Amino acid sequence: MLTLFHHPMLASCRFVRLAFGEYGEELALIEEKPWNRRREFLTLNPAGTLPVLLAEGDVPIVGAQVIGEYVDETRGVLKRERRLFAENPMERAEIRRLVDWFLTKMESEVTRHLVRERVLKPMIPREQGGGSPDSTAIRAARSNIRQHMKYINWMAGTRHWLAGPRITYADLAAAAAISVLDYLGEIDWTEQAAAREWYTRLKSRPSFRPLLADRVRGLSPVSHYADLDF
Amino acid sequence: MLTLFHHPMLASCRFVRLAFGEYGEELALIEEKPWNRRREFLTLNPAGTLPVLLAEGDVPIVGAQVIGEYVDETRGVLKRERRLFAENPMERAEIRRLVDWFLTKMESEVTRHLVRERVLKPMIPREQGGGSPDSTAIRAARSNIRQHMKYINWMAGTRHWLAGPRITYADLAAAAAISVLDYLGEIDWTEQAAAREWYTRLKSRPSFRPLLADRVRGLSPVSHYADLDF
Repeated sequence: MLTLFHHPMLASCRFVRLAFGEYGEELALIEEKPWNRRREFLTLNPAGTLPVLLAEGDVPIVGAQVIGEYVDETRGVLKRERRLFAENPMERAEIRRLVDWFLTKMESEVTRHLVRERVLKPMIPREQGGGSPDSTAIRAARSNIRQHMKYINWMAGTRHWLAGPRITYADLAAAAAISVLDYLGEIDWTEQAAAREWYTRLKSRPSFRPLLADRVRGLSPVSHYADLDF
Repeated sequence: MLTLFHHPMLASCRFVRLAFGEYGEELALIEEKPWNRRREFLTLNPAGTLPVLLAEGDVPIVGAQVIGEYVDETRGVLKRERRLFAENPMERAEIRRLVDWFLTKMESEVTRHLVRERVLKPMIPREQGGGSPDSTAIRAARSNIRQHMKYINWMAGTRHWLAGPRITYADLAAAAAISVLDYLGEIDWTEQAAAREWYTRLKSRPSFRPLLADRVRGLSPVSHYADLDF
């Protein structure tokens, strides 16, 4: 069994868990608090970021997108119609664009800020960057959520899954980010019906179950977080 | 001939030009000013970021790393020992980690800030985010350069090329970032001899020539910028 260094409230880590989950492969999870800058962890990844996968031979593979490519090269290629990636280079480029959209662009406009202010700062010692949430940062991040939800809604409404007729990494990346924000009650599900229908489909998949069981100490999820019919 | 929307002072765009250059394929270059948010450009890439490649059939491929993967899938796989990527999934993961290091981590710690403050803000109208450089941002970025140069120096000294015995995307990504900073005179070449030797090797390659000819209006490069013996 491979080992994943992760944090339950990081979209990039959830993406990796979903990918392995879709392929029915269990991971040994180690919860890492990157702000501690543990020496052993920095040896695995000098950038000090999550996720890090210990792959075959305990070789560290660093970063969600890099791990995603590795999983495709070593597992996905064998999965035929269950492969979470396309065969065609153009379709692969579109899937990669969307993974980057949700794990980099949406992360830097929305997810990172809400997780930092609402989840991490209250639990991190002040001398390591913790403290009171910054309400300006929270407001700015919240004001960006709707555009991303509209984009998901448009794709889910026209393409069924985000990158086309089949479920791909693009869906896992978007759902990873949305699931973190949904835990925090940041998603308004009364709008964007196609996005809601798409997320319901994802939430019902066995790969999603471990994410719906995640809990952060001192911060309960919204009541509908784990409901498959919300 | 494929078309690349780019800006000469962005490391991510230089990376793509180097990759095509190494494979001897010329690109039609269109200089795009992303801060203008041109409607036609946003149609190609709703994120409004560079680079964007118009690939076969004028299909837009968005982002340096996504373009890099596309170039490998459609060109690199045919290049045998001239391929800028590895065959082995673990080695591929290490190359991707380093590309991400230089085009994302170093970009967000160093390159982006110095380019924004020293190159872009003076040429962008104030209402689009231009104006006087922020000396605090410049100082913070400068204080991070040395760590990255030391990392390059260590890899160049122990591995010959950054990811191993052969030149790969990792070298192109690092050199793309370094070349932008070197244009601005931000690299201290009196230290880190192995990094300097590595960069001299790269600078002498034909793929580098177009980058050494780049000029930004109103901002001349340092005197050694285009010297192969600096």
